[in-house]
Amino acid sequence: MLRFITAGESHGPELTVILEGMPAGLPLQSEDIGTDLARRQKSAGSGARMTIEKDRARITAGAMGGLTTGAPICLVIENRDFQSWREKQIPPMTVPRPGHVDLNAAIKYGYPDLRIGLERASARETAARVAAGAVCKKLLEAFDIFVGSYVISIGKIVLQVQNSEHEQLFRSAESNVVRCPDAETAELMIQEIEKAASEGDTLGGIFQCFALRVPPGLGSHVHWERRLSARLLFAVGSVPAVKGVEIGNAFENAGSLGTDVHDEIIVDSSGKQLARKTNRSGGIEGGITTGEPILVRGAMKPISTTLKGLNSVDLASGKPARTVYERSDVCAVPRAAVVGEAMMAFVLAEALLEKLGGDSIEEMKPRFKDLRSGQLDR
Amino acid sequence: MLRFITAGESHGPELTVILEGMPAGLPLQSEDIGTDLARRQKSAGSGARMTIEKDRARITAGAMGGLTTGAPICLVIENRDFQSWREKQIPPMTVPRPGHVDLNAAIKYGYPDLRIGLERASARETAARVAAGAVCKKLLEAFDIFVGSYVISIGKIVLQVQNSEHEQLFRSAESNVVRCPDAETAELMIQEIEKAASEGDTLGGIFQCFALRVPPGLGSHVHWERRLSARLLFAVGSVPAVKGVEIGNAFENAGSLGTDVHDEIIVDSSGKQLARKTNRSGGIEGGITTGEPILVRGAMKPISTTLKGLNSVDLASGKPARTVYERSDVCAVPRAAVVGEAMMAFVLAEALLEKLGGDSIEEMKPRFKDLRSGQLDR
Amino acid sequence: MLRFITAGESHGPELTVILEGMPAGLPLQSEDIGTDLARRQKSAGSGARMTIEKDRARITAGAMGGLTTGAPICLVIENRDFQSWREKQIPPMTVPRPGHVDLNAAIKYGYPDLRIGLERASARETAARVAAGAVCKKLLEAFDIFVGSYVISIGKIVLQVQNSEHEQLFRSAESNVVRCPDAETAELMIQEIEKAASEGDTLGGIFQCFALRVPPGLGSHVHWERRLSARLLFAVGSVPAVKGVEIGNAFENAGSLGTDVHDEIIVDSSGKQLARKTNRSGGIEGGITTGEPILVRGAMKPISTTLKGLNSVDLASGKPARTVYERSDVCAVPRAAVVGEAMMAFVLAEALLEKLGGDSIEEMKPRFKDLRSGQLDR
Amino acid sequence: MLRFITAGESHGPELTVILEGMPAGLPLQSEDIGTDLARRQKSAGSGARMTIEKDRARITAGAMGGLTTGAPICLVIENRDFQSWREKQIPPMTVPRPGHVDLNAAIKYGYPDLRIGLERASARETAARVAAGAVCKKLLEAFDIFVGSYVISIGKIVLQVQNSEHEQLFRSAESNVVRCPDAETAELMIQEIEKAASEGDTLGGIFQCFALRVPPGLGSHVHWERRLSARLLFAVGSVPAVKGVEIGNAFENAGSLGTDVHDEIIVDSSGKQLARKTNRSGGIEGGITTGEPILVRGAMKPISTTLKGLNSVDLASGKPARTVYERSDVCAVPRAAVVGEAMMAFVLAEALLEKLGGDSIEEMKPRFKDLRSGQLDR
Repeated sequence: MLRFITAGESHGPELTVILEGMPAGLPLQSEDIGTDLARRQKSAGSGARMTIEKDRARITAGAMGGLTTGAPICLVIENRDFQSWREKQIPPMTVPRPGHVDLNAAIKYGYPDLRIGLERASARETAARVAAGAVCKKLLEAFDIFVGSYVISIGKIVLQVQNSEHEQLFRSAESNVVRCPDAETAELMIQEIEKAASEGDTLGGIFQCFALRVPPGLGSHVHWERRLSARLLFAVGSVPAVKGVEIGNAFENAGSLGTDVHDEIIVDSSGKQLARKTNRSGGIEGGITTGEPILVRGAMKPISTTLKGLNSVDLASGKPARTVYERSDVCAVPRAAVVGEAMMAFVLAEALLEKLGGDSIEEMKPRFKDLRSGQLDR
Repeated sequence: MLRFITAGESHGPELTVILEGMPAGLPLQSEDIGTDLARRQKSAGSGARMTIEKDRARITAGAMGGLTTGAPICLVIENRDFQSWREKQIPPMTVPRPGHVDLNAAIKYGYPDLRIGLERASARETAARVAAGAVCKKLLEAFDIFVGSYVISIGKIVLQVQNSEHEQLFRSAESNVVRCPDAETAELMIQEIEKAASEGDTLGGIFQCFALRVPPGLGSHVHWERRLSARLLFAVGSVPAVKGVEIGNAFENAGSLGTDVHDEIIVDSSGKQLARKTNRSGGIEGGITTGEPILVRGAMKPISTTLKGLNSVDLASGKPARTVYERSDVCAVPRAAVVGEAMMAFVLAEALLEKLGGDSIEEMKPRFKDLRSGQLDR
Repeated sequence: MLRFITAGESHGPELTVILEGMPAGLPLQSEDIGTDLARRQKSAGSGARMTIEKDRARITAGAMGGLTTGAPICLVIENRDFQSWREKQIPPMTVPRPGHVDLNAAIKYGYPDLRIGLERASARETAARVAAGAVCKKLLEAFDIFVGSYVISIGKIVLQVQNSEHEQLFRSAESNVVRCPDAETAELMIQEIEKAASEGDTLGGIFQCFALRVPPGLGSHVHWERRLSARLLFAVGSVPAVKGVEIGNAFENAGSLGTDVHDEIIVDSSGKQLARKTNRSGGIEGGITTGEPILVRGAMKPISTTLKGLNSVDLASGKPARTVYERSDVCAVPRAAVVGEAMMAFVLAEALLEKLGGDSIEEMKPRFKDLRSGQLDR
Repeated sequence: MLRFITAGESHGPELTVILEGMPAGLPLQSEDIGTDLARRQKSAGSGARMTIEKDRARITAGAMGGLTTGAPICLVIENRDFQSWREKQIPPMTVPRPGHVDLNAAIKYGYPDLRIGLERASARETAARVAAGAVCKKLLEAFDIFVGSYVISIGKIVLQVQNSEHEQLFRSAESNVVRCPDAETAELMIQEIEKAASEGDTLGGIFQCFALRVPPGLGSHVHWERRLSARLLFAVGSVPAVKGVEIGNAFENAGSLGTDVHDEIIVDSSGKQLARKTNRSGGIEGGITTGEPILVRGAMKPISTTLKGLNSVDLASGKPARTVYERSDVCAVPRAAVVGEAMMAFVLAEALLEKLGGDSIEEMKPRFKDLRSGQLDR
């Protein structure tokens, strides 16, 4: 069992995540986590806060001498502007923002001030997930598995490039603020964001997470919660504001003929290894990995806090009111992609641990090497 | 905690599901379950087997005198053709079908015969889920919550009717074999299926599940696995062959402006109750129900077994081979929609039990009545 | 994850258990389960029912051709006297028996008839656990791990023999109806039961479950639910009427000096292997197995239904009343020991699967062989 | 679902616990936690470290304005001597201590230095559990449920006082360093500890945790993991060095006749309320609370680190060696009792949340008031 719990509010002193169930002997430094924390902060559509933060994770438990010990790993990310917020007297927030958790959380928990809900619902929490995900990526890397992502659309601007060189697309995407692999499309996306910003509006979009060199045989068809596809849809579908998810091009495939969708099985040029001509399945068939790249897309709705305001009701007076602007991003898709990676890495790390078992990297390594693959003589 | 485990193979003696965690005092008869089992069997795109089966659930545990007792509920569905299959000598299956679990399951579990994997991967298992879901629906009904579904697309044929009278759409859909609310579209869908069948091909499509009169405040934003949106994506995304899921029109919303997506908050005509002008959120914001209809869509890939065959490899010889046809449906979308309902009902029943607690319907009833809603004076 | 759910009532048609998470390739026949079912039925202190039943488990899912498939395993045990009970009109039971669940279950679930609670609380349910445990034992046997038990005390009669030849003690115990390793003590126990029976009273006692050849390194100290000691205390402590549990002689050890309790570490005669001079720890230190025999004791209270009756209250009238006798055992300790074995086997199977991972016996075997033990050169 | 994960090592910078699943609206201050942290530190048999620490919990998440919010609660306890340890060069520890996790953890995780295992296995971790337990107690207090403990035996010295005024016994126990309710026995226990200390030896003992005013109907008989007795045996049995647990006097009851063990049911003096003449069941029958005080005992083995040393093997040389003394307590029973309280409070808080459901104290209060009790007219 691999599990994590995050804690922390947007304007509290710090975010914390405990990741429990990682094997011993995995190299782990604060810097390993910092890279993804920084990636999560980079964005064209970000508000002022992103500049303030410069997140860094402190490892307070679960590692000694630069190696994990098998004990719960605790990561702490300071909220640097906590001190300045701490002193402020902030009047209660009483006008719920459509799209946000404000009203529903107040109804559910009986909050007297809407701010109590949004403090936890804030995307700030995802920094803790990214930290946990970075440790999961370290585990996957020890077995040469790579998890990345890039942005496919922002608003109406959609990436047209279609190829399966995911690692290369990833590297191109990392070079621009919208994390889009194609420079021209990236430029259009940036313009789209600027336009929305100038109109006091916000944008959503679609990102794609991928994992490379995942061995076949992770996940299972035998029970519903074991299906790796469902587990990925769950995890990526839990990223705030993501409300649609698909493995590969699932929505497009739903409109095609079976013979145009399924990935035919071939013997590769070595004559010994089974392979696929295509990867329309997104790397998973029957809830089990095929060995092909795993592809998961997330559809993110536009940011809920819009500068121009929306109609709502002031809960204090019961009268109609316009929403009041809270500092916020215009578009968070490039950042959500990094959170999606973290959730994907968590699911894959868990599935790999199920397959390999064991309590240390040293114990897992030879087991990984002996995994049955699609070789014809086995 | 509400949980269920299904067991059973496609050609085994029977399917079994144990549902654990239901309160006492819920009226439950075999007939309550039979209705949904029959709905799961009806389909334009079904093979011969559907006619054979006539599923019926036997309640072997957890109910006495027509009421649940709080103990685990066990439901058994006989496989009526078990006896005839039992005697047959069937040669091992060695050519894995693209799209199906065949190859991956064999790699994972080391199966010497591909049939071992497909016996459990068969959609036959979903009858057990539908049985469990029928009990969950009974619980929801006790609180006037209704769960239904209809088909939105089959292949290229897409339902154009857009309105929010879900219960009425549902009733219309129930009157035709493709479960599409619009009679004309239904006719086109049936033709599409016949065409695919005549070409030896298969089809997928998209269904929509909905839930009405769910109170606001189910699910939560406080931790990722508690988000009701993610839990629904997980559950509906676990239906065999479903590889894409969305809450409301999530993929479309991802391309729109924030002010065109979020559902403004109003005071309804009574002057006392908060309401929404629209339901573009699909009934969930921030992982919590809004009180509006909950909408979940599933994108199902085309059936993997195609009459015309696909290229594969014979694992026995290592040589290229065409897949061999196994009796199968041409299109299972109308049936998958019913399975989607079951999974949705399970998630909502669990979320309702979390909110209400309690061990009997009698204990839950007054609590439900006292639930905080969006009333202005509370 | 290994898990099971049982369903079924004492006078319902059948008991069912689904065991989910077992690897593929484990030989499994109905007979493997029948042996333990028969052992659970044998007892000096049993009522008439034991003669009626002759339990047999039908495997309805999860195995093909005599081997498990990795899919959920479903086992069904018929209640042979169901037909005769079915017809009977039984008046509601309104006088709760002290010691039994009667009153508490009625308060909790709002039962109008106390019989509803006792139908599920009956020890009949443990037949389903024993069936699941028998499958777990098959898994353990594949790795040469043996789980057994014997009775240590019944009422005031306590086994004095103290040695650590558990397998031999087990075999001796199997030869008499009270499952006590020492023939003379067994005779005294039988007399004690007869005496209690003649007085219309009941007896409890203490049994010891043990597991041999469990490798060191199962369980963990890193988090509380991972401690194998706690997991065994949980599982064996869940056997009906068992209210005290200990690993080894824990209660006695609590009164001794540290230097008299801890098991010194030595190099064995081969000069290469670490070993222990004693096993006062009961095979677990710090929540992790030591490689020595694992010993878990359960203290069972006397049967709650006493022929001579106890003071209670008739819930129908609110007046004091004597309890009415329901057919029952006088002493169930020898049978509870077999249920204890099943729960122990389940916990150990789960812990072994955590350590080895993998999806088939074939995949697990070489991993088991390579497990680190207490060898000096590793 | 209520859950917590602790993290932190004995000589790391801090201990952390995240408690997830608590309702909103519960008053919570750092001081509420400090009281139990201080109680955990007080002991006659403690080493020097207890004086150093003076634990204090910082609440870093899950509460705003002195009230819980429903979000995960994070508590941080600084290790004050971290800075001094940080600089030290400590040679690897190679002689495993019998009784401790040293050898087993090294075999399991492949640790090159035994210190890696003991850093997490140290009882220091229990401070985090006590912090989480203190929050659970706050929840229970909101419903007038009280959880306490006292020490029953240390080594051969056993408390003879037998009465059921648990709260009074608790208060007496709090006034001395061994937490024994009887002053004379306490004095003998202190002498016993001094004697063991002077001989370089260690002691264990037995503590009793209790909970008062728990309503009837928590836990369940319907499935094994739902039995409250088993859940308490699990939780209290997970306290480090506790290897035996019992509900009430279970081991003694196992030797008595049924009619001497079961608690007869009466109508109390009001003529309207069912009650029990005795509480030999320890407050739980059939896995469900009776409404009587809940009693759980834990048997703790003597501390593993003995000043006089034990025979072991130096893993570096493979030669016999004596264990080297690490700073440690002589007897930790009075402290373990406080940890036992924390675990008991966690289990009861979870069971109460199951019964009441709900997301805020405000929502739970009227439900609690309406709980069915053993009143005759309901």
